[in-house]
Amino acid sequence: MTTAPGKPGLTVSPLAVPLPKLGPIAGVRLAIARAGFYKHERPDLLVMAFDEGAACAGVFTRHGVGSAPVDWCKASLKSTGGQNLRAAVINAGNANSFTKTAGVEAARRSAEAVAGVVGCRSDQVLTASTGVIGVPMDASLIEAQMGAVSHGLAPDRWPEAASAIMTTDTFPKAAAATAVIDGRTVTIQGIAKGSGMIAPNMATMLAFVATDAAVSPEALKAMLTPATIRTFNAVTVDGDRSTNDTCLVFATGKAGNAPIADAADPRAAAFAAALEAVLLNLAQQLVRDGEGATKYVEVRLTGAVDDASARKLARTICESPLVKTAIAGEDANWGRITMAVGRADEPMDRDKLSIRFGDLWAARDGAVAPDYSEAAMSAYMKRQELLITVDVGVGAGSATMWTCDLTHGYISINGDYRS
Amino acid sequence: MTTAPGKPGLTVSPLAVPLPKLGPIAGVRLAIARAGFYKHERPDLLVMAFDEGAACAGVFTRHGVGSAPVDWCKASLKSTGGQNLRAAVINAGNANSFTKTAGVEAARRSAEAVAGVVGCRSDQVLTASTGVIGVPMDASLIEAQMGAVSHGLAPDRWPEAASAIMTTDTFPKAAAATAVIDGRTVTIQGIAKGSGMIAPNMATMLAFVATDAAVSPEALKAMLTPATIRTFNAVTVDGDRSTNDTCLVFATGKAGNAPIADAADPRAAAFAAALEAVLLNLAQQLVRDGEGATKYVEVRLTGAVDDASARKLARTICESPLVKTAIAGEDANWGRITMAVGRADEPMDRDKLSIRFGDLWAARDGAVAPDYSEAAMSAYMKRQELLITVDVGVGAGSATMWTCDLTHGYISINGDYRS
Repeated sequence: MTTAPGKPGLTVSPLAVPLPKLGPIAGVRLAIARAGFYKHERPDLLVMAFDEGAACAGVFTRHGVGSAPVDWCKASLKSTGGQNLRAAVINAGNANSFTKTAGVEAARRSAEAVAGVVGCRSDQVLTASTGVIGVPMDASLIEAQMGAVSHGLAPDRWPEAASAIMTTDTFPKAAAATAVIDGRTVTIQGIAKGSGMIAPNMATMLAFVATDAAVSPEALKAMLTPATIRTFNAVTVDGDRSTNDTCLVFATGKAGNAPIADAADPRAAAFAAALEAVLLNLAQQLVRDGEGATKYVEVRLTGAVDDASARKLARTICESPLVKTAIAGEDANWGRITMAVGRADEPMDRDKLSIRFGDLWAARDGAVAPDYSEAAMSAYMKRQELLITVDVGVGAGSATMWTCDLTHGYISINGDYRS
Repeated sequence: MTTAPGKPGLTVSPLAVPLPKLGPIAGVRLAIARAGFYKHERPDLLVMAFDEGAACAGVFTRHGVGSAPVDWCKASLKSTGGQNLRAAVINAGNANSFTKTAGVEAARRSAEAVAGVVGCRSDQVLTASTGVIGVPMDASLIEAQMGAVSHGLAPDRWPEAASAIMTTDTFPKAAAATAVIDGRTVTIQGIAKGSGMIAPNMATMLAFVATDAAVSPEALKAMLTPATIRTFNAVTVDGDRSTNDTCLVFATGKAGNAPIADAADPRAAAFAAALEAVLLNLAQQLVRDGEGATKYVEVRLTGAVDDASARKLARTICESPLVKTAIAGEDANWGRITMAVGRADEPMDRDKLSIRFGDLWAARDGAVAPDYSEAAMSAYMKRQELLITVDVGVGAGSATMWTCDLTHGYISINGDYRS
């Protein structure tokens, strides 16, 4: 079940990685059910339940058409202050987005149903939905599963959970890491879904991370926000962005460390690094499951005026259809990279621009590299995982982003409805 | 010759339009030659010569890696003040971009060679190049054709000129219009090339327009700049932008109208409208020749806070891979349009958002339209030319943009080098 694709007939990405070993996280129980948002037999409902006292922080889509479940989460995190969150209810198959007041009602009913199972207020339950946009979501399908959820809650269901939230994903995604706080080993473990920044009728990047560490909501948020910039916001498949993107981190505190109340606490550094490692691993798996992807590409941008400028330059390279199709064609077409760099409208020095593929120089100081070898370059471009390093020669700003190629597979997945 | 594709083996776009009838423009002579930037037999060199006294205005790429010929044009228009330009030399097959000092030298030598033929200073000659980026351009190939150019200059070569500048274009592009100034009919006629905002190794949008009207350089520039926003800057194929984009307008003054010295002159209005009509026709032909295009799409964005915001919203829709693949699949996937609108980061009201395909409402006031008909929508989506109207419900700003779909053809043209 854990490797079943979210949608029948999808071929598993050639860039897929195996699901890592996922143990329990103290204070977290999971239940999986089938609400029936899909016609075919598959789990499509995940409930995460937390023991009393779990802290939570979240980051959400900045999309102008944010969905009802995102609005619900924001309101809940505000009313609770991120303290004592007790559950999250997540469904695949309907994004509950662009559904107006009916959508607000469906999110509320989902949260209330789970609150009844867990025994808490509804604002202690967070919501997330992924799937088709603009179709009213039938909350009774979720309510009808509360008996199964109540009986099913168990600490060892992480692999099933990773599968239950998939839509057009071709493989389930999870990551785990540990850190030491006060001599105690804490675990951070998460699952994610997404294939394309937004998949077709099936929207959304979702990620749910839990840790047994004791961390305050404020410290969690202060670590999550910058880490998101370097992880989920540093990957792109097609530049399209979902109405429902959600990343929630829950800290149960069961590891028994003295709580980290402030991200500036020196004890927080190891935890923050492990959290970021988990987020990065999950984010990179999204790229590995990019729709139609056959190449996994890391773009390192250096020499920009500052890091924000470097990110914009790197993003423009990563989202350029011409760069992405060249990579699909195993063509070291550095002219297209100069084009992308130039259209980013960021400071750069044309006569210092340098581009490398792996260790091979393509361009150096604004012209083709003197030692450019087409044979060596062609051999490099045949690899499944590529590194492109670009220096724009005006400063010390840098950024790294990850993307995939743009192939016939992307067109087929997203455009071949009627053919 | 006029319908020969710029590159062998290309299939003519299904959206192609026939070359219009192109007469001479008084004061303009054209010569076509083969410099040899292509291995196969085809014209790749165009020289436009103007009688004494032609005014000129230009708009150029805002690309950070502007090419040597663009730099040359900017310097020439500055030193001449746009007065008495005598020629333009345009080659296909080498963009002379990212070529450093060798590129500057090649542009200078090209201009000097043509200045020798026409009998003028080299800064009275403008340059434009399109083709492969990063390969030093051999100016001697152009110099060697000056005898042929000198003998070939003639007023009736406009159709051949439209073909000579093609790269990956699948059909030659031209447009003409007339206006009445002081009771005299003036003609505005232009040619353009481009297939994709930037084509692969073959870069660039180029457009050359000539009129027999008498218009000062200042007035010409004052009319050209805003018209460009609503024409060339209102079309997009893949969002990628060239290092060489150039649009030059020459006014010979041979029609004999009293010169228009100021764009605010009431006599300028009819001329400005005709100029914009020519530019729009050329720009729309670029979309019709979009790489792999099978659908021609007009997006009308209304209800934005202002026109600039409307343009950004329209552009985001037009460049969204998910919107473009849905159109290719003849799928009226309005959920993807809401997604694109939302990620434009512009003011909009989710609960007032309305979307129409032709006259058919897909969404109205933030939810699926009550009279939505899948059958009617599917029938509409099968058309080759589509109109999508989106209202974001917050103001009176509007914009119209044109784009094409994203198909397997685009991937094949840009990515199938090694397969």
